[in-house]
Amino acid sequence: MSPMPEPRLDEPSPRRGRPGYDAPTVLRRAIEVFNRQGYEATSIGDLARELGLSKSAIYHHVPSKEALLSAALDEALDGLSVAIDQATNGAPGISANERLRTAVRQSVEILVAHLPAVTLLLRVRGNSEVELAALERRRVIDDKLASLVRAAADEGSLRVDIPPELITRLVFGMVNSLVEWYRPDGPVSVAELSGAIVDLAFDGLTA
Amino acid sequence: MSPMPEPRLDEPSPRRGRPGYDAPTVLRRAIEVFNRQGYEATSIGDLARELGLSKSAIYHHVPSKEALLSAALDEALDGLSVAIDQATNGAPGISANERLRTAVRQSVEILVAHLPAVTLLLRVRGNSEVELAALERRRVIDDKLASLVRAAADEGSLRVDIPPELITRLVFGMVNSLVEWYRPDGPVSVAELSGAIVDLAFDGLTA
Repeated sequence: MSPMPEPRLDEPSPRRGRPGYDAPTVLRRAIEVFNRQGYEATSIGDLARELGLSKSAIYHHVPSKEALLSAALDEALDGLSVAIDQATNGAPGISANERLRTAVRQSVEILVAHLPAVTLLLRVRGNSEVELAALERRRVIDDKLASLVRAAADEGSLRVDIPPELITRLVFGMVNSLVEWYRPDGPVSVAELSGAIVDLAFDGLTA
Repeated sequence: MSPMPEPRLDEPSPRRGRPGYDAPTVLRRAIEVFNRQGYEATSIGDLARELGLSKSAIYHHVPSKEALLSAALDEALDGLSVAIDQATNGAPGISANERLRTAVRQSVEILVAHLPAVTLLLRVRGNSEVELAALERRRVIDDKLASLVRAAADEGSLRVDIPPELITRLVFGMVNSLVEWYRPDGPVSVAELSGAIVDLAFDGLTA
């Protein structure tokens, strides 16, 4: 699965004779550099080098380093928010347990579909207004997931000897840890991966 | 639990009139700065400011930024290596399943006891010889854990519909994700935490 949206067809095509980039490509390459060497340690000059542009030409493509960070974090957060809202709202009559399974499965799918952007998101520490806003959006998503775990515990389908807040941390910690090792072109398909995580989280690894 | 060893009693006491630091304190404060603003983005000047020293005085305490990184990564890796070797070797007659439970529990305990150093370790990307050596030591530990999971699968005590390599990634991904949220002075004790992780990993969250 492509980790970023395809370039929009109505964007101008690259000019001849010097590198031309559409906005999604600039964003994708910037996220790669941020993940490789760290956002704080990346300068606009580094991004210019990555794109084969001079330091003055880069500003034609990049308003600021922070605008790229903001766009990357929004990409990850928009995907996760839509997935979690779909899962938590669900059709009437669907149990909280089933909605939680859907939330876990869809979180894995979004992580894989937007792997570089989510990787960047998970490394954000709140060092700027942009990062603090992203952490606040993450907190809203985490609260929705914790409510869903509590609802499943309340309906009697989850074990009650581990607090719902701790279950939420551990299950979605397992999901988030994917960014450290999973590669979409590797031997494990996203369907196998999301299935394994749901099975492991709900049924454990005992035979 | 203290996240770092106490200063050794045989080290010289701080001199009067200017800040004096023993080696464990310098290391602990350096790890805090590395985790807060990123290792790459931290300069020797930043470390001097953190310790209230001039940039020339810092070299009395700090041989180099990379020496501090190396010491921090060794602290984390030494702890994890000893714990995993104890768990995997185990006394004769102990099942692979029981050794795996011990490995999970002890990994959690080491992560909590050395939380800042392990946090730093888990962010290492291989950007230098020191980082590559640390990644190689991590790989050796991961291989031992994967062998233990395979041994438990071979003895018939683990489910076989998820490949052992994937189980290893997911279970220890859940363990490692602790560094993102767990605080030793928070409401969850390390005993509650390690128990919850072992229970969740082996038995799942279904009631």
